[in-house]
Amino acid sequence: MSNPKRPEQPANLARRNFLGAAGGLAVAAASVGAAAMAPVAEAAANPAAAPSDKEPFWGQHQGGIVTPQQRYTCFAAFDVTTNKRDELIEILKHWTIAAARMSEGRPVYPLDSTKDTEPPADSADVLEISPARLTITFGFGPTLFSKEGVDRFGIARRRPQALVDLPRFNGDQLAADKTGGDISIQACSDDPQVAFHAVRQLARLAYGKADMKWVQNGFTGDGSKGTPRNLMGFKDGTVNPPLNDHAALNKLVWVGSEGDWMRDGSYMVVRRVRIALEHWDRSPLDFQEQVVGRHKYSGAPLGKLNEFDAADLDAADSDGNPIVPDNAHMRLASAAANQGMQILRRGYSYNDGANFTAERWPPWRQEVEFDAGLLFFGYQQDPRTGFIPINHQLAKLDIMNQFITHVGSGIFACPPGAQPGSFIGATLFG
Amino acid sequence: MSNPKRPEQPANLARRNFLGAAGGLAVAAASVGAAAMAPVAEAAANPAAAPSDKEPFWGQHQGGIVTPQQRYTCFAAFDVTTNKRDELIEILKHWTIAAARMSEGRPVYPLDSTKDTEPPADSADVLEISPARLTITFGFGPTLFSKEGVDRFGIARRRPQALVDLPRFNGDQLAADKTGGDISIQACSDDPQVAFHAVRQLARLAYGKADMKWVQNGFTGDGSKGTPRNLMGFKDGTVNPPLNDHAALNKLVWVGSEGDWMRDGSYMVVRRVRIALEHWDRSPLDFQEQVVGRHKYSGAPLGKLNEFDAADLDAADSDGNPIVPDNAHMRLASAAANQGMQILRRGYSYNDGANFTAERWPPWRQEVEFDAGLLFFGYQQDPRTGFIPINHQLAKLDIMNQFITHVGSGIFACPPGAQPGSFIGATLFG
Repeated sequence: MSNPKRPEQPANLARRNFLGAAGGLAVAAASVGAAAMAPVAEAAANPAAAPSDKEPFWGQHQGGIVTPQQRYTCFAAFDVTTNKRDELIEILKHWTIAAARMSEGRPVYPLDSTKDTEPPADSADVLEISPARLTITFGFGPTLFSKEGVDRFGIARRRPQALVDLPRFNGDQLAADKTGGDISIQACSDDPQVAFHAVRQLARLAYGKADMKWVQNGFTGDGSKGTPRNLMGFKDGTVNPPLNDHAALNKLVWVGSEGDWMRDGSYMVVRRVRIALEHWDRSPLDFQEQVVGRHKYSGAPLGKLNEFDAADLDAADSDGNPIVPDNAHMRLASAAANQGMQILRRGYSYNDGANFTAERWPPWRQEVEFDAGLLFFGYQQDPRTGFIPINHQLAKLDIMNQFITHVGSGIFACPPGAQPGSFIGATLFG
Repeated sequence: MSNPKRPEQPANLARRNFLGAAGGLAVAAASVGAAAMAPVAEAAANPAAAPSDKEPFWGQHQGGIVTPQQRYTCFAAFDVTTNKRDELIEILKHWTIAAARMSEGRPVYPLDSTKDTEPPADSADVLEISPARLTITFGFGPTLFSKEGVDRFGIARRRPQALVDLPRFNGDQLAADKTGGDISIQACSDDPQVAFHAVRQLARLAYGKADMKWVQNGFTGDGSKGTPRNLMGFKDGTVNPPLNDHAALNKLVWVGSEGDWMRDGSYMVVRRVRIALEHWDRSPLDFQEQVVGRHKYSGAPLGKLNEFDAADLDAADSDGNPIVPDNAHMRLASAAANQGMQILRRGYSYNDGANFTAERWPPWRQEVEFDAGLLFFGYQQDPRTGFIPINHQLAKLDIMNQFITHVGSGIFACPPGAQPGSFIGATLFG
């Protein structure tokens, strides 16, 4: 059964592939300039991609923050393994070009079937299909600026004050292999394979210079019939700053001129929040509603009729008890309970199958349970007045903690968008 | 911050929930008869679900086998923990009614917001949205018939000869927590949340009587532009028995009258096949094509121009070497190389993030890599002439083994469909 043309010698093949990969990177590097200069003239690989299938990549802000939320996300955190500033900048340049191309439905680099002795420039698994509003959002974690006291890239003094290390919150059970990272990449698309494809190509471009640390996929409910529901069965996202309210976004989400290189960027906090769905599903309806602070089926605040009715946090029943309990999630997360602060939530659900786990609360079941829950993304102008105080309050007081556990976490400074010819991170590294 | 109406006493609440859950099951049980008798008269919870959004549940065959493949799947394997035959039958009856209702876009049981001191009958997270062609397919594993020599349910003598224990295949690296199970449930839908919702409700109905053993989600590529591509970037599913060729399906997929209680059923093999995407992506295009036996971009068999051209397995080049290598995946999996046998493949990709792994082949990289690959489902009339001999050949000879590792596995006898008023498994347990 041997094949004379291509001997089955894995050691040789692997060696050849290794060299091939190195060659591929060199080829790719050589083409960056050309690709950057002629992205428009090049024919799109996917002529079927209608304009509405595409979100712009280049611009004042990065995409994927105030972009109307896509249904799927693939999030990856990387640790940079090179200590060379030039190599890091080269990766960022590659990533920028590749992200721009993929946002337009193009392969990460042009495919050339005549170069068949080289690894293909793109895995090609989404070759014919729509980018489905793909956005790719990059962020820089605290450890990029200095790690174990070492300023590897000469940027330690430029670490923004707002890019704090997240404190430990009450109840945190963070897993090291789902936490942190030097750089974050979040791909969002209405097609999950497109999102994964994007992260996979970008990971490959950085092989040997930046390693994946953790990867997490997520999805949202079908929003065609109104606010989608999360895995708790409640409508999620009813209260969020309107994406077309520029004044609110400038106040809550975007960094202003005080931000130096972060101007027009935003700070992102990600949390992987496991939900004890088995426990939740066995909880009475009225208790679920008091935990959330809303009616389950209508989505209305407790005591109201319609989803978008304003909550009356002062209302009391005839016994003088608050209609929305003091420890209800909605009350504690509200702007009213947080000095008017809001963050832009861009939440996804996640569903990673099932594994053996011990519940945190009585009856302390130990069994195979769904590893599923909320993949929280929150964008804000400053986490010190955004996520951190809000989550401190929630972590201490929210009755929902009976059902949820924060098991993964990250904080990233997402720099401004880039203009064609420039790259993401140019304001920091340029 | 205490709430006088609902004291924060988790122990009490948990106790109450436990009782509540038991009560909920009793209520549900009482309603099975009525629901079975009046599924049509009841108003659909989701009036927006158009007929094309629904696949029939009741019928000669179970859905989800020759149903045109949906984009998402949620597969779960359960171990039955009760030893009582009556309780197992009760679960199957509940599951049947619930599956039929969910296939029509209804909650698993009718929701009643006036019963707010009970756990809701459905998690409600897909309340408004389309069933998106949901199918739910049940199967019985070898261990349901006898486990550790014990015939718990009086069915050991009815175990079909075709429901063999799968042999160990060359290269198998099966993880115990992703292998086997007494009962399988596969939900498929064009919406991933709908598929997960279905499995979650069914798992809940069996709480305390059947435990989840493993759960695996999958997706396929967007097929709107032709045969979708798998994560290797190749079109996958080009050669499959046509779903409208009843003669072929009766020969290859469906069990005939010789099958006793399995008549009109089918045998399913599931394999979780991790792909070393990092290794694959570094392999030259020509080698990828020789591994698969097809051209990557066109999908044509090697030496041919178009995807649906028949492969010429006898063709040789001017040196006499076969155009399709002897160890190419496509050749070894072909009907021609397997005495004309084919199985109905219903493959999905899976993407479970990333974890630390050691590659099986040189250069034996150890790093965080994508935990992604193929979630193989194959249906056949008899695994002894279907999956087993085909996979023995692949496991020994397929050059693709350099990139893939089978890490999870299961075999299940999927009984015939049910008629309204009956239940899945009635031919075995009735």
